[in-house]
Amino acid sequence: MRDVAIIGVGMTKFGEHWDRSFRELGIEAGFKAIVDAGIESRDVDALYVGNMSGGLFLEQEHVASMISEAVGFTERNLPAVRVEAADASGGVAFQQAVLSVASGIHDTVVVGGAEKMSDLTSIEVTDAIASVADRSWEALFGATLPSLYALMARRHMVEFGTTREQMAQVAVKNHYNGARNPYAQFQREIKLSTVLNATPVAEPLGMFDCAPISDGAAAVVITTMDKAKEMGKDILVRVAGIGLATDTLALARRKTFTSFPATRAAAERAYKMAGVGPKDVDVAEVHDSYTIGEILAIEDLGFFKKGEGGIATEEGRTSLEGEIPVNTSGGLKARGHPLGATGVAQIVELVWQLRGEAEGRQVKDARIGLAHNVGGAGGTVAVTILEVI
Amino acid sequence: MRDVAIIGVGMTKFGEHWDRSFRELGIEAGFKAIVDAGIESRDVDALYVGNMSGGLFLEQEHVASMISEAVGFTERNLPAVRVEAADASGGVAFQQAVLSVASGIHDTVVVGGAEKMSDLTSIEVTDAIASVADRSWEALFGATLPSLYALMARRHMVEFGTTREQMAQVAVKNHYNGARNPYAQFQREIKLSTVLNATPVAEPLGMFDCAPISDGAAAVVITTMDKAKEMGKDILVRVAGIGLATDTLALARRKTFTSFPATRAAAERAYKMAGVGPKDVDVAEVHDSYTIGEILAIEDLGFFKKGEGGIATEEGRTSLEGEIPVNTSGGLKARGHPLGATGVAQIVELVWQLRGEAEGRQVKDARIGLAHNVGGAGGTVAVTILEVI
Repeated sequence: MRDVAIIGVGMTKFGEHWDRSFRELGIEAGFKAIVDAGIESRDVDALYVGNMSGGLFLEQEHVASMISEAVGFTERNLPAVRVEAADASGGVAFQQAVLSVASGIHDTVVVGGAEKMSDLTSIEVTDAIASVADRSWEALFGATLPSLYALMARRHMVEFGTTREQMAQVAVKNHYNGARNPYAQFQREIKLSTVLNATPVAEPLGMFDCAPISDGAAAVVITTMDKAKEMGKDILVRVAGIGLATDTLALARRKTFTSFPATRAAAERAYKMAGVGPKDVDVAEVHDSYTIGEILAIEDLGFFKKGEGGIATEEGRTSLEGEIPVNTSGGLKARGHPLGATGVAQIVELVWQLRGEAEGRQVKDARIGLAHNVGGAGGTVAVTILEVI
Repeated sequence: MRDVAIIGVGMTKFGEHWDRSFRELGIEAGFKAIVDAGIESRDVDALYVGNMSGGLFLEQEHVASMISEAVGFTERNLPAVRVEAADASGGVAFQQAVLSVASGIHDTVVVGGAEKMSDLTSIEVTDAIASVADRSWEALFGATLPSLYALMARRHMVEFGTTREQMAQVAVKNHYNGARNPYAQFQREIKLSTVLNATPVAEPLGMFDCAPISDGAAAVVITTMDKAKEMGKDILVRVAGIGLATDTLALARRKTFTSFPATRAAAERAYKMAGVGPKDVDVAEVHDSYTIGEILAIEDLGFFKKGEGGIATEEGRTSLEGEIPVNTSGGLKARGHPLGATGVAQIVELVWQLRGEAEGRQVKDARIGLAHNVGGAGGTVAVTILEVI
């Protein structure tokens, strides 16, 4: 496998973009990444797009070709591939793009992730999102994603004594970080009491335990390490490890409610490939679509022992000044969660951190970053490890 | 890049499977391919799934993980990736799987393609299919896929004198072949007059110029050439070349209506990689979602000069006994067209032909086969070249 480097990143602000189309969001993110890379469009060999459901949100499938055209790539009839894995679509698309460069078929590839969710009502959005759960055995009986995560939260409380306040602290921390990220949907700090007193969504989870409905796009440019070196970049960000794993869609068919086996498997593969372990990670973006999700993630990724994720969060060990800063971007909770864009936005944030460009939220001497992107209630997990060389 | 071989193939019968789910179709095709390969499930490293719109047809996204579970792969948390590129989803998924093996990350991969379309009304299906055209600039104004292909047919008639009868002959030939394929949706021959007198769909195209609405799944197992050789297979089928290309979704933004530039680009890439040309191809499966599509394909692939596809078809040059037999399976017209399954089913048919197992429709001494899979009205094209070694 050829070594792969990330040479450019870019994203739109995440939020409610009533006045802009899916296409326009994709163009902005794509061109920002190309400009950041210091290349021209003609240097690009292919496009990968992570998108969860153009079909249900926009009645538009075939979105990789659509974006390929929007950014001018169809003038050279470039290859374009859309990847879908629920809200892990961005992370999986990134990994597929890396494999294409590693294989030798492409040298320089743009990977974009995008979703436009605000054109539907929130009830329609919730139903569309339930399409990533098991429609026949879960969603058909009324189980939506918040209710599935609520089951996991409740079980974690029972098994490990995790408290409501510890979960709420995830949201407080991520809003604190989001307030320092100009691309975040919510750039304001919140208090613990705001989370605890918010409207219930699926108890114990309330409004502030859930990521918002968002529009947005993010993009990165990758190329071979050899080409990246030739370009004379000051800082080279290498894709050190990738890991992908699946699990049953339905929670009812899982052996555990307090762990994502797919996170453990994907992390194991990525750590092995990168030749590092959880203690080596300096900064991490993890999938906090619900606050309990971040607690599961920091345990399953090996940052903390199983059952200790809540306490660790409460003690500030995952804060900007903590031993392992998690979701410096604000995470899905505060940066926003345009489903297919999230996995790529995680990579963008890590690159900014590894380059020392995360002004206002910079982690000191960050050399190894980890992105953890979950599809649905853990049916897909993509873990990617980046390092500065 | 590592050399890749196809070691197993399988598919369901295509047709209206009222009594079977998407999941069940996927299981049947997947296990048939695994059994055909002579391996066990535990030998598989990853799954790729081509599916056009689980979202619009079934309200079910995240289908790669769903199939991963259905075939038991989630017990080992195997990686699974869904690829979508309209009705080229199967062909593009196959190529991504090939790249994953070529890159070195996986050795043995199952690629499945599946679609379940019959659960909706035909009006709903037509609208869902229109999601692969440009929703904002075509479908929103009432242009469905048949009408877009009708525009191309009419223009081909004007520019090159292609006749209604020549297009109809595509359907007659493909039904003749389908009558010899036990997996085909329509296993009966038809007369030219049947096509000419059929209910108009979008003139000049009638009912028998259009591929049907179908359910079905197809799967193949690929591995490294080294592993395939170790297995001692009698006949080794090598993936000699792959090519992928995109074009504008909207016809209005194309320079030509009588050619698919994406077919030309994808074919050029695949021919170059394989080191062969159109004259070397012994058997081809091309994308005849509409009869005019096959005429465009055999011209753009270089089998015949531009404008001569209609005459060549009329003269029998693409029939089973002709110089380049096209759509020996019956094609999309007679084998059926479960959108995401089609590209994989094309590979299955070619492998049967190259192994000499296409009983009743076998092309003599077929050594090089070409699959041509189109997304929508030419917005994506995947061309794959296989050879016996």
